[in-house]
Amino acid sequence: MATFVFCSLNRTARTAARRSLSSHLPRLAGAAPPLCSAHSPALTLRWFSRGTRFGSQGTAGSSAARTTRRGALALGGAAAVTAAAAVAGFLANANHFQRAEMATRVSMAVEEKEEGDILERCRGFMSPPVTDIGVLQGSKAEMRTRMEMLIMETQAEFCRALQEVDGGTFKVDRWDRKEGGGGISCVMQDGKVFEKAGVNVSVVFGNLTEEAARQMRSRGKVLKGKDGKLPFCAMGVSSVIHPKNPHIPTVHFNYRYFEIEEEDGTKQWWFGGGTDLTPVYINKEDAFHFHNTLKEACDKHHPQYYPDYKKWCDRYFYIRHRGETRGIGGIFFDDLDSPTQEEAFNFVKSCAQTVVPCYLPIVYKHLNDAFTDEEKDWQQVRRGRYVEFNLVYDRGVKFGLATPGSRIESILMSLPLTARWEYMHEPAKGTQEAEMLEVLRNPKEWV
Amino acid sequence: MATFVFCSLNRTARTAARRSLSSHLPRLAGAAPPLCSAHSPALTLRWFSRGTRFGSQGTAGSSAARTTRRGALALGGAAAVTAAAAVAGFLANANHFQRAEMATRVSMAVEEKEEGDILERCRGFMSPPVTDIGVLQGSKAEMRTRMEMLIMETQAEFCRALQEVDGGTFKVDRWDRKEGGGGISCVMQDGKVFEKAGVNVSVVFGNLTEEAARQMRSRGKVLKGKDGKLPFCAMGVSSVIHPKNPHIPTVHFNYRYFEIEEEDGTKQWWFGGGTDLTPVYINKEDAFHFHNTLKEACDKHHPQYYPDYKKWCDRYFYIRHRGETRGIGGIFFDDLDSPTQEEAFNFVKSCAQTVVPCYLPIVYKHLNDAFTDEEKDWQQVRRGRYVEFNLVYDRGVKFGLATPGSRIESILMSLPLTARWEYMHEPAKGTQEAEMLEVLRNPKEWV
Repeated sequence: MATFVFCSLNRTARTAARRSLSSHLPRLAGAAPPLCSAHSPALTLRWFSRGTRFGSQGTAGSSAARTTRRGALALGGAAAVTAAAAVAGFLANANHFQRAEMATRVSMAVEEKEEGDILERCRGFMSPPVTDIGVLQGSKAEMRTRMEMLIMETQAEFCRALQEVDGGTFKVDRWDRKEGGGGISCVMQDGKVFEKAGVNVSVVFGNLTEEAARQMRSRGKVLKGKDGKLPFCAMGVSSVIHPKNPHIPTVHFNYRYFEIEEEDGTKQWWFGGGTDLTPVYINKEDAFHFHNTLKEACDKHHPQYYPDYKKWCDRYFYIRHRGETRGIGGIFFDDLDSPTQEEAFNFVKSCAQTVVPCYLPIVYKHLNDAFTDEEKDWQQVRRGRYVEFNLVYDRGVKFGLATPGSRIESILMSLPLTARWEYMHEPAKGTQEAEMLEVLRNPKEWV
Repeated sequence: MATFVFCSLNRTARTAARRSLSSHLPRLAGAAPPLCSAHSPALTLRWFSRGTRFGSQGTAGSSAARTTRRGALALGGAAAVTAAAAVAGFLANANHFQRAEMATRVSMAVEEKEEGDILERCRGFMSPPVTDIGVLQGSKAEMRTRMEMLIMETQAEFCRALQEVDGGTFKVDRWDRKEGGGGISCVMQDGKVFEKAGVNVSVVFGNLTEEAARQMRSRGKVLKGKDGKLPFCAMGVSSVIHPKNPHIPTVHFNYRYFEIEEEDGTKQWWFGGGTDLTPVYINKEDAFHFHNTLKEACDKHHPQYYPDYKKWCDRYFYIRHRGETRGIGGIFFDDLDSPTQEEAFNFVKSCAQTVVPCYLPIVYKHLNDAFTDEEKDWQQVRRGRYVEFNLVYDRGVKFGLATPGSRIESILMSLPLTARWEYMHEPAKGTQEAEMLEVLRNPKEWV
C-alpha cells in the first residue's frame, strides 16, 4: 500500500486534512476531549444529576461486569484518523484510496487500551445519551449499553466531520417517546456545503404485540410473549446527507440493534444496517473508493459479507416503478444474529467506523467543483427520485409513519431540502446524465 | 342574483374575460370550432382513417341507438361561458361570486339542442379520443361513450382555459396500454402562471381477477367472474395544477367511471370523483367561492351531496402522520351507483362542468399579486406536504405504482415541479402561515 504523502496535497486539501487530524489528535493523545459545541458546562452538569429512567425497564442494578473490550472508544480516534488519512491520500491523486498505514498504527494502539470511562466517552457526544449515564455505567458489559455507546459515538464523529467541512453547526434536538425511550436528532440545514444533513440516534423500548414483533423481524420468526406481549428494545443511528454541489453525492447509513424477550426469558437479538451512496453523476474513482472501503471493512469479518450485502443493497434500494436503483449502492443487511453476538457487534462496529472514511474524502475532493444550472437541475430531479424511494418503499419510513407516537420530523429528515419533478424527463443519449441512469438501471460491480 | 357588470372590471380582467368569452363563442354560435393547437390538419386526417380498436372488445357493431340527450356538448360552451362570467363577476369585486345570468341563459339554449355529431365534438379535443371515433359513433347511447366524450371535453375546456391565462401551450402525449386502452396526458410545465399543470384522460379495459375487482371497488362487493375473470372498463379525467404565485392555490379534480361485467352478463357500474383546493394562504372569499360553486352544482342533484361529499373529502385528503388535511377540501365521492345511471352521470357532468368556474376566477383574481421570498418558501413547504400525501396515501397513485404496465409519468404528473422539506418547520404564532395550518388541522365549513 502506498505511503501517505502529505506534501503532495494542494493547499485546500492540506488545510482540510490538517484541521481534520488536529481536531481528533487530542483525544488520541489522552487529553480530555472538549465538550461538543452544542453543550454548555451548565447543561453537562444537568445530565449527570438526572434520575435513572432506564430503571423502570428492570435492567438498572444489573452487575457492572468489567470486561476488557476493544473498539468502542476507538471509533472516535481510529475512524477519524483513518478518515483524515484517506482524505489526504485521495486528494494526493493516488490510483486508489490509500488507507494510510499511519492511521492503522494509531488505531491499533488505541484499540489495545481499555475503553475508558463511560462518563468521559459521553462528553464527546452531541447530547447526553438517551439512557441515563448512571444506568449505562452500571451495565457496561451489556449489548444494549455497548450499542448505545457505539451509535452515540458514530453520530458525534460524523457530525463533527461534517461540521468541519461545512463550517456550520448541527441543531441538536433531544426528544422523548411517551411509550419509552427517545432520541437525539442532529440536523444542519442550508449550510455552505450541505443542503440538509441529518444524523439521528434513537433508543426506544416497551412492549410489542406478537404480530408487531413478527413484522419487525424481516425473516418473520414466530415469537412467544407473556400474555401476548414481548418486551423489546430497538436502537440505531441513521443519517442522510444531501450536499448542495451536484458533484458531491448523497450518502445514507443506518446501523441498528433489536432485542426482544420471549415468555421464557430468552432474548432474541439481531443487528441490521448499511451504508450506500447516491451520486448525481458517475465518478468511477469515487465509486471504487466507497465500495472498496466498505469491502475492506466487511472482509475483516467474513469474505461473503461484502458480495452478499452489496447485492442485498442493490435489491433493497430499488425504485420499482422507475426500474432504477436509488443510487450506486453499498452494503445492506438485516437480521444478523450470527456467528456470535460479539462478532456480529464487531462487524457492525467496523461498518459504523467506516462511514467517515467512506464519505468524507469524496466530499473534500469535490468541494470546489464548478457546476452548471443544468447539473443542479439534474441533481434536483434525482432528489425527487430519492423522495419517491423514501416515501413509497423505505421500510423504516413506512413503519415510522404508520406507528403512533413516532417523531415524524426525525423520520422525514431524510428528505432533501429541495426536489424537482419534471414531466417525462429523459436525458439525451451520450450525456453524463444518461450515463448515470444507465448505471441505476443496471447496477455494476465497482470493486 | 346580481347582474354581470362588464364595465366595472379593471383593464386586465376585462381583457381576460373578453378573451375567454370570445374564444368560446364561435362554438356556441354554431361556427366550426378550430382544431386544438396541438393538431395539424394532417394529424386530423390520420385520426379519422384509423381502424376500430374498440372492436376487439366486442362492443363494435352494437346498435347506434339515437337518443336525445342534454348536456355533453354543452360542457364546452356552458362551462366556459359560466367560467368567463364568473371570472368577470369575481373580479368586479362582488360580495360573492356571481354566476352570471347571461351564462345560464346561453347554457340552457345549448343544452336544449341536440348534442351534435361525435366527429364535430371530437374536433375540439386536445387529441383524438382513446376509443376510435367510428366506435364512439356506433355506440352513442352507451355510458362508456358518453363518459369518454365528457372526460375528453372536460380535458379540452380546462386545458384551453389554462392556456389562455398562462399564454403557454400544453404538451399532448397519447399513450397506449399494452393490456387494452390508453390515455392522453396534457402537461404544461414552467409556464408564466403555472409551475406545472397536468390534465390526464385515461380509458383502459381488459380483464380483472376477482381479487383485483374487489379491491377496485371501495365497498368491496364480491363479484363473480367467468373462470375467475371479469371484463372491466375504467375511464377518467384527472388534473393537478400547481401555480407559481403562492397566492394562487393548487387545484385537483378527478372524475371517473367503472364498469365490470359479471359471469351472468350483468354489468356493475359506478362513478367516483371530486374537486378540491389546496391554497398556500387562506383567503376566505376564495374558499367561499370554491365551495359554494361546488355546493350549487351538487344541490341541483341532491341536498345531501354537498354536505356528505365535503366531509368525505376532508377525511380522504388527510395526511395522517402530520395531522393535517392536504388543503381546504371540496367534494369527494366514490362508488356512486344511484339513484339511476342517468342521474349519476348527470351529477358527474355537473361536477365536471364546474371545474373551470370553481378555479379560473381565483386564478385571474390573484394573477398579479405580489409575493415575498418567504411566501414562496412557505408554498414550497406546502408542496412538500402535497408530495407526502400523494406518495403515501393517495389510493390512485398507490394503485397505479403497484400496477404493472401503468404509465408512471401520467400518475406522477400530479407532483409539483419543485418542493421543499425544512426540518421542524413551524410558522410563528399569529402569522398567515399559522392561520393556514390551523385550518388544515381543523377543517372548516366554508358555505
